[in-house]
Amino acid sequence: MQNIYIIGIGLIGGSMALDIKRLYPDVNIRGIDANPLHVTEAIDLHIIDEGAELNDIANADLVIIAIPVDASLEVITQVLDNIPDSCLVIEAGSTKEAICGIARAHPKRRNLLTAHPIAGTEFSGPSAAINGLYKNKTMIICEVEETAFKLQEKALKLFSDLGMRIRYMNPKAHDKHIAYVSHLSHISSFMLGKTVIEKERNERDIFDMAGSGFESTVRLAKSSPDMWTPIFKQNKHNVIETLEEYIANLEQFKKHLEDDDYKAIHLEMKNTNHIKTILKGIE
Amino acid sequence: MQNIYIIGIGLIGGSMALDIKRLYPDVNIRGIDANPLHVTEAIDLHIIDEGAELNDIANADLVIIAIPVDASLEVITQVLDNIPDSCLVIEAGSTKEAICGIARAHPKRRNLLTAHPIAGTEFSGPSAAINGLYKNKTMIICEVEETAFKLQEKALKLFSDLGMRIRYMNPKAHDKHIAYVSHLSHISSFMLGKTVIEKERNERDIFDMAGSGFESTVRLAKSSPDMWTPIFKQNKHNVIETLEEYIANLEQFKKHLEDDDYKAIHLEMKNTNHIKTILKGIE
Repeated sequence: MQNIYIIGIGLIGGSMALDIKRLYPDVNIRGIDANPLHVTEAIDLHIIDEGAELNDIANADLVIIAIPVDASLEVITQVLDNIPDSCLVIEAGSTKEAICGIARAHPKRRNLLTAHPIAGTEFSGPSAAINGLYKNKTMIICEVEETAFKLQEKALKLFSDLGMRIRYMNPKAHDKHIAYVSHLSHISSFMLGKTVIEKERNERDIFDMAGSGFESTVRLAKSSPDMWTPIFKQNKHNVIETLEEYIANLEQFKKHLEDDDYKAIHLEMKNTNHIKTILKGIE
Repeated sequence: MQNIYIIGIGLIGGSMALDIKRLYPDVNIRGIDANPLHVTEAIDLHIIDEGAELNDIANADLVIIAIPVDASLEVITQVLDNIPDSCLVIEAGSTKEAICGIARAHPKRRNLLTAHPIAGTEFSGPSAAINGLYKNKTMIICEVEETAFKLQEKALKLFSDLGMRIRYMNPKAHDKHIAYVSHLSHISSFMLGKTVIEKERNERDIFDMAGSGFESTVRLAKSSPDMWTPIFKQNKHNVIETLEEYIANLEQFKKHLEDDDYKAIHLEMKNTNHIKTILKGIE
């Protein structure tokens, strides 16, 4: 593994580049990004060795695609068209059904591994890249059987070196489950932020009265709209389903309040406290 | 200030006790709690010097009431009935209108200062008490003019020693604003936790697919139902209003998705990103 190309040098791609450089200091990491400022910024931050273009990848040993999921759908074909036979392409988007669908018919499908690293923060761009982001995090791999054995092995070696644990899922199940544990969290957070901002035009009041609980609950509302709009688009049906269930639960809670049924409210919270046990594994 | 009684030795009262003991090592801190196990636990943890009963407070210089807000409504009268004339009583609940209402007619109203420290975690009980919890946090004081000058001064000195900044509000405005920045966050978090738990009966899936974003957004769903049920009850009308606005915003977001109006979705998120600037003051 000598020539590595990272397409999209943001939080995900940039953090990957930092770890790879630390693990294998001799590799050459080239960065490709739709925003030329990201390339120069990533060079300045020593995230990549140099900038490149999509049609430079003919000598690539490894290409990592970490761009908004709508752009992925177009770029993936161009990448597969241009790589040499031995190259591994890892696509790291947050939705998997559409990308697996697009890739299925491509003659170089076996060069591709589609995966979703469950890692990140609410920040974006090269400056958001973090050393060791992937350590002890989960990598969900979809349709692993569609990837050539040797390249599966190469990818698993990389993920293991990054300190990740691996889970295999089909893309349909991935998109359904991730809508609950990731996409819905983002919407609940964005809409909480919106509701409070709308009400509290005098921002000084929010600042003074909001504590760490509010901060934690709206943290995801800092996330990038450019990244999240295409995710919601691609996972529209699952996201709508989660939203309907979430709204129904909120309506029921409101009903309990209107009915002065505080026993029911207590019970709702008590049952949900069970999340403590579940979260212990995440922290 | 020699004889201090803390009623409710949990996160708020216990943390207060720890700081007070550090600031004024010579005081005697006695703890009163409906749960006798909390008293022994608090002694073992060196949070209080000894246990006490409500009718011991005749020699009190300072009484801090930090119990669920429904219990506060009853305890406050008993406390005011039993304190000596020079004693300061600080009531530290998360809702202020009902408590101010109850206190208004009491002959010892001027011994009472009603306040809400914007500080805490999702944990409760004596083991949740933290040294320095109040440093750089906001204390909201309601109806300060109802408290005797000397006792105002005494309270402000204590809060200043704790490292807190002070804000004055009327109880009605307090309850209205806090519904947005605190109570709604808790409900959104509890209902998010509920929605995901209901869907993902196989907990292993949540564990593996949930990242730090989910963890942050559902953190408040670990909070104590015993503490939060009476808060929602006392602030019912404001909480219902915030819930209605929150649900309307979620419905609108869902509508945008159903209409494939991704421009609107992008704009919603972009506008809410503004929360970054607001939150900078909280972190």
